[in-house]
Amino acid sequence: MAEEAAVRAQAETVRRLKQDKADPDEIAKEVAKLLDMKAQLGGDEGKQKFVLKTPKGTRDFGPKEMAIRERAFKAIISCFKRHGAEVIDTPVFELKETLTGKYGEDSKLIYDLKDQGGELLSLRYDLTVPFARYLAMNKITNIKRYHIAKVYRRDNPAMTRGRYREFYQCDFDIAGQFDPMIPDAECLKIVHEILSDLQLGDFVIKVNDRRILDGMFAVCGVPDSKFRTICSSVDKLDKVPWEEVRSEMVGEKGLSPEAADRIGEYVQLHGGLELIERLLQDPKLSQNKLAKEGLGDMKLLFEYLTLFGITGKISFDLSLARGLDYYTGVIFEAVLLQQENQHVEEPVSVGSVAGGGRYDGLVGMFDPKGRKVPCVGVSIGVERIFSILEQRLEASEEKIRTTETQVLVASAQKKLLEERLKLISELWDAGIKAEMLYKKNPKLLNQLQYCEDTGIPLVAIVGEQELKDGVVKLRIVATREEVNVRRESLVEEIRIRTNQC
Amino acid sequence: MAEEAAVRAQAETVRRLKQDKADPDEIAKEVAKLLDMKAQLGGDEGKQKFVLKTPKGTRDFGPKEMAIRERAFKAIISCFKRHGAEVIDTPVFELKETLTGKYGEDSKLIYDLKDQGGELLSLRYDLTVPFARYLAMNKITNIKRYHIAKVYRRDNPAMTRGRYREFYQCDFDIAGQFDPMIPDAECLKIVHEILSDLQLGDFVIKVNDRRILDGMFAVCGVPDSKFRTICSSVDKLDKVPWEEVRSEMVGEKGLSPEAADRIGEYVQLHGGLELIERLLQDPKLSQNKLAKEGLGDMKLLFEYLTLFGITGKISFDLSLARGLDYYTGVIFEAVLLQQENQHVEEPVSVGSVAGGGRYDGLVGMFDPKGRKVPCVGVSIGVERIFSILEQRLEASEEKIRTTETQVLVASAQKKLLEERLKLISELWDAGIKAEMLYKKNPKLLNQLQYCEDTGIPLVAIVGEQELKDGVVKLRIVATREEVNVRRESLVEEIRIRTNQC
Repeated sequence: MAEEAAVRAQAETVRRLKQDKADPDEIAKEVAKLLDMKAQLGGDEGKQKFVLKTPKGTRDFGPKEMAIRERAFKAIISCFKRHGAEVIDTPVFELKETLTGKYGEDSKLIYDLKDQGGELLSLRYDLTVPFARYLAMNKITNIKRYHIAKVYRRDNPAMTRGRYREFYQCDFDIAGQFDPMIPDAECLKIVHEILSDLQLGDFVIKVNDRRILDGMFAVCGVPDSKFRTICSSVDKLDKVPWEEVRSEMVGEKGLSPEAADRIGEYVQLHGGLELIERLLQDPKLSQNKLAKEGLGDMKLLFEYLTLFGITGKISFDLSLARGLDYYTGVIFEAVLLQQENQHVEEPVSVGSVAGGGRYDGLVGMFDPKGRKVPCVGVSIGVERIFSILEQRLEASEEKIRTTETQVLVASAQKKLLEERLKLISELWDAGIKAEMLYKKNPKLLNQLQYCEDTGIPLVAIVGEQELKDGVVKLRIVATREEVNVRRESLVEEIRIRTNQC
Repeated sequence: MAEEAAVRAQAETVRRLKQDKADPDEIAKEVAKLLDMKAQLGGDEGKQKFVLKTPKGTRDFGPKEMAIRERAFKAIISCFKRHGAEVIDTPVFELKETLTGKYGEDSKLIYDLKDQGGELLSLRYDLTVPFARYLAMNKITNIKRYHIAKVYRRDNPAMTRGRYREFYQCDFDIAGQFDPMIPDAECLKIVHEILSDLQLGDFVIKVNDRRILDGMFAVCGVPDSKFRTICSSVDKLDKVPWEEVRSEMVGEKGLSPEAADRIGEYVQLHGGLELIERLLQDPKLSQNKLAKEGLGDMKLLFEYLTLFGITGKISFDLSLARGLDYYTGVIFEAVLLQQENQHVEEPVSVGSVAGGGRYDGLVGMFDPKGRKVPCVGVSIGVERIFSILEQRLEASEEKIRTTETQVLVASAQKKLLEERLKLISELWDAGIKAEMLYKKNPKLLNQLQYCEDTGIPLVAIVGEQELKDGVVKLRIVATREEVNVRRESLVEEIRIRTNQC
C-alpha cells in the first residue's frame, strides 16, 4: 500500500513535469523511475518483470501427473512389447533438411533452432520421419519397433483439451515387405487393445484407404492435380459440416459443383464388410484400378479383423482422410464416443486418440538410391488420454500415491538420529524402499502424519528399550497395530507386509 | 561409369564455352547442369547432396543400445525410488531468460531456438535450473524428486568417451530446510549404491565444500573479487597438472605467486576424518569463519557416512571445485578408477560419472520475493556409464535380447494363416507376448530360424492334425523338445515355461 502510494506520487510528478513542459531529459528520467517502481510493484504495466512460467503450450508434470502418465505409458508399452516390438530412440532435433518436404502445409509449424554456427537444426515434428531417416541411414529393411518421445509443433495450443506444443507420441511401426494387410491388421488390434485396457469408454476406429480416396476423387471428376488439396478438405469433415467443406471445394479450390456433390454422396458412407462388397460392385468405383485395389485390401483387412474379433469397433468410413502427405494405403483413426448422451442414436465423437496408416514411400525419400521400405504404423495420442485420466481421477477422489516407500524409519525419543541412520542404511542395502525425516529430533506425531499424508504403510520405530532388546517396533499405519520384530527379521517382515520382494 | 563419362563431357563443354567467351548466360546454364550431374553422382564436389545423418554430437539408440540403456535406467530409478523420491518432468525448452545468468561462462553452450515470433526459448542446459524454476513457480518448499531427461550443450563432442551434445541426466534432489548434512549424506549414499549396483569397477567419490574453498582462498591471499575465477582454475586440476593451473592463476588471472603457492599446498591434500581434524586445527583456516563452518559440516558429514558404512570410497579432496556457479556448500564428484594397472600405487581416474552439491541460493533467484529454498542434489552422468556397459557387453559376447516375446505362433503347413491369426489373438488377449511371421505361408525352417535369431524360447505350432485334436504343438527352442498341449491349457503352459505371469 505504501508502495502504491509512492507510485501514485511519482506519476503525479511526471504529470506535473509534462504539464510544465519541463526539460525532456528530466521527464524521461522521472518516467523511467515510475516504470521501475511499477515493475517492482508487479503491476500490469511493469514490463521489466521476470515472468515465472513455462513456454506457451507446454507444462510441467508434477508428481501426481507423472503417476498418471506412468500408468498410461505402462499400459501402452506392455501392449507394444506383447506384440514383440523392439524400442529405439532418436535425437530431439534433426537436420532441418531431414524434415523439409515431408509435412505439406504443416511445415510452418516446425520449430527451428537458431543458427549459432554449424548445422541448421529443427525440433522433430513427429516420430515417423525420424524413423524413416533411421531406417534409410542404417539400411534396415525389416523391423518392428516402438518409440515413445516428445514431439514439437508451433500450433495454437488448447491445453484443456490436451493439445500442446510439446507433447508425447507413442508410435508402433512395422517396416518390411510382407503379405498384404497382416501388419496393418495388427496395428488396428493394438489400438483396440490399448483403448480397451485404458478403459477410456466406448470408441470407434475409423478405417479408410488413400487408394480408395484417390479412386473416388477420380470417378467423381476431380482433376489429378487437385487430389491432395481436395483430400485436405475432406479431412475437415470430422470438425465442420459437409456444407462448409463443399463450399471450400467449390469456392476456394475451384472444383465443379457436380464433382463436389458426387464426393458428398460417397463421404457420408460408413459401415463394414457389406459396404465394402457394395462398393466393389459400384459401377464407377469398380472401374477404377486404385479404388479396386484399395477395396480388395480393405476386404482382406476386415477378414483378418474378424479373426481378431474386433470388427465391432471398426468402421470403414469414406470421410476419413488424415492430414499428412506421406500415407499411401490404409489409414485409420480412433475416436472416443461421448459417454453422457447414450440415448442419442448417433454417438458424438469427442476427439481422436490414435491414428496411423501405411506409408510405403517415405523411407525411399531418404535412401540415396530411392529403395523403398513399406511401412505401416500407429501413433497413440497420449496427451488427450492423460487429460481424460486426470479428470477421471479428480472426479473419483481416489488418492494416488506418488512414491513407493514401504517404511518410514522413525524414533519416539530424542538423540536417536544415529540409530535411525544405521537402520535405514541396512534397509536400503537390503532393497527396502525407506524414508526418514531429515530432522535430528522429529516428533513422533509428525512422523506418523508424514505417513498418513504420503501413504507409507509401515513405520519402523527405534527406541532405547527396543535397541536393548534387539528389536524394532513395526507399526501398521492403517490399523495402528504395533508389533515388535527382531532386527534380523525386519527386512523379511516388511517384504511380507508390503507384498514386495 | 557412364555417368562419370557424362560429367566429364559436360565439364569439357563448360571449358570450351568459357574459352570461346560464349554468352555468360549460356555458360551459367551449362555450369548449373554440370553441378547437378555431379550432385547426382554423389561425388565430393556435389554440394547439393542430401546428407543422411543425425546432428553433430547426437546419436540414435538402436534396439541393442536401448536394451543397455534400460538396464542402467532401471538400476538408477530403483535406487531413486528406494529413497522415496517422487518424479517430475519439465519441458525440453525454457524461456531464454530462465536460463540467463545461471551458468557463468558456460552460457555460450546453450542452444537457442530461432525467433519465429512469440517467446524467446532455449533448450535446457541441465535439470537443476528447471527444477529451481519449478519450485519457485509452484511455491514448493519441500520435495524429494528425481528427473531423468535429456539436456543440451553446444560443446565439442567426444562421442567415444561418452560426451555428446544431447545427453541424459539422471537427477535426484532434496529441497527443504532441514538439519545439516542429513540430506547431503543421503545423496552420497545414493551415488555409492548406484555405482556399486551397476558394477562399473572401483570408484572414489571426492567431496569438498565451497565454503572451505572460499575460506582457503581468503587465507591464501586471493582477493574476494577473484574467488570465482580462481575456483574455475582449481576445477581444471583433474585434467591438467598443477604447474599449468598455477601459471594460469598467476599469468592470466593476475594472482600473486605467493598466493598461488599457498593454494598449491592446500589443493594437494586429500584424506578422511583425520584430515578434517587437522585442518580444523590449521592456524590459518581455523581463523576463517567460512572455512570453519565448512569443515565443521564436513566432519558431521563423515560421521553420517561412517554410519552408512561408505567412507571407504569417500575422499575429502581440497582440489575438487566443480564448474557451476550455483553451488554454495558441499560439492562432490564420483570418478571411476582405472582397472588395468592395479599394480600402480595411485590409481588413475578415467572420468567423472556422477556429481552434485548443495545450491541454497538458486530457487531464490526465481522467487519474486527472493525466498530461499535450500537444495542438495546429485546428477548421474549416464552416457559415460552407457559407453562402459556397451564396451563390456561387446567384450563379453553375451547375446542381449531386444524383445521379450515368449512364443512364436507358427505353422508347418500351408493355408493356415487364419488359424495362426486366431491363435495369436487368443494369446495376446491373455497377455502372452507373441509374434508371428507376416507371411501367408512361411516355411517352418524360417520360423524356427527367427526364434534362434531373436531368442524367442517357445514355438506354438498349429497344423491340420493338431486342429482336429484340439491341441497345439509347443516346441522348446533350446532343447528342440516338442509337446502337444491342449488348446485351453496353452496360455498356462507358456506362462510356466517362461516364468512370466
